[in-house]
Amino acid sequence: MSNTRINAQLAFLTEVDKLKSVVRGTTLCDGSRKENSGEHSWHIALYALVMAEHANRPVNIDRVIKMLLIHDIVEIDAGDNPIHGNHDPVEMARIEEKAADRIFGLLPEDQRKAFRTLWEEFEAAETDDAIFAKSIDRVQPVVSNLATDGGSWPEYNVTAEQLQTRVGVKVQKGAPAIWEALKARIDRWFAEHTTAS
Amino acid sequence: MSNTRINAQLAFLTEVDKLKSVVRGTTLCDGSRKENSGEHSWHIALYALVMAEHANRPVNIDRVIKMLLIHDIVEIDAGDNPIHGNHDPVEMARIEEKAADRIFGLLPEDQRKAFRTLWEEFEAAETDDAIFAKSIDRVQPVVSNLATDGGSWPEYNVTAEQLQTRVGVKVQKGAPAIWEALKARIDRWFAEHTTAS
Ligand SMILES: [Ca+2]
Repeated sequence: MSNTRINAQLAFLTEVDKLKSVVRGTTLCDGSRKENSGEHSWHIALYALVMAEHANRPVNIDRVIKMLLIHDIVEIDAGDNPIHGNHDPVEMARIEEKAADRIFGLLPEDQRKAFRTLWEEFEAAETDDAIFAKSIDRVQPVVSNLATDGGSWPEYNVTAEQLQTRVGVKVQKGAPAIWEALKARIDRWFAEHTTAS
Repeated sequence: MSNTRINAQLAFLTEVDKLKSVVRGTTLCDGSRKENSGEHSWHIALYALVMAEHANRPVNIDRVIKMLLIHDIVEIDAGDNPIHGNHDPVEMARIEEKAADRIFGLLPEDQRKAFRTLWEEFEAAETDDAIFAKSIDRVQPVVSNLATDGGSWPEYNVTAEQLQTRVGVKVQKGAPAIWEALKARIDRWFAEHTTAS
């Protein structure tokens, strides 16, 4: 085994360490601090493993887990973009493509290509595996927000309708049973925190 | 799909969020803070994916990744035990067994059993998958320590010989080519930081 190959792999693995310093909009379930994208990636890989049976269509869970392990790596250069924040999607896509070029480019060519292809499949959200992976990525922040009395929803002035449009629709597409289970909790929270106008 | 089942799964997934608050002995690669066991679990799952080709014997990488995703969950109750720290292994094993009972016990019975079995396989370190997983778990802190000028080695007064005995032997068993690549870097660091007696 050539050391050049191992050194390239170690350079990539050291670079992605920076994902642990990318701070997300949502907090931990105890509200003690904001979550980072490294620990988030671990958490949703585990979510997918535990929740695979609820996928709308049959998925290859091993591929889904790999997708989720790498899905946020571009944030090292592009930052996290909270779903309820404002950003230009075309410009963001350009920045993320560049990030993928640079970071996956640290790997040996065969692995660069494999990781890049898997990341693009996730982003495109067209295959059954990617649709389920995207659903899971949306479920975890909802659970954290519910655990912390609405979490980042008040900060972003999120309404129940926005949550349904921005999150619910996507979760329903990949994992309808999970959204159904969460919907009752969500409705209860918003009923308690919305003043009649 | 019964809500009881999804609720049990969500209770487990919410409980394991606490792994993000278990602080380890090693720091991030930029030395900015100590690493937590949640982000560590993500990082080594990715290490395994990238480094699978260096396994001493053929492994099922999908099983290895699952093992690594759950391998540290018991630390929520038992805490992290730095490899260079002092602790009673029998007492630690007892505490970790109890932690596994409690935390995996939140899952539906079929999943509890599957996760428990996988975690016990990791702990036993006898199968090819578990031996490789254990190697990877040992490799990542070494890379972090090298990236931060020895990292936690001075704090624990680690010598080159101790590193070989406590870490090297295990990495060599599961992934000899990786240890060979790291050995040159390790020897250089200790040569530069050890005063002749
Ligand atoms: Ca560990």
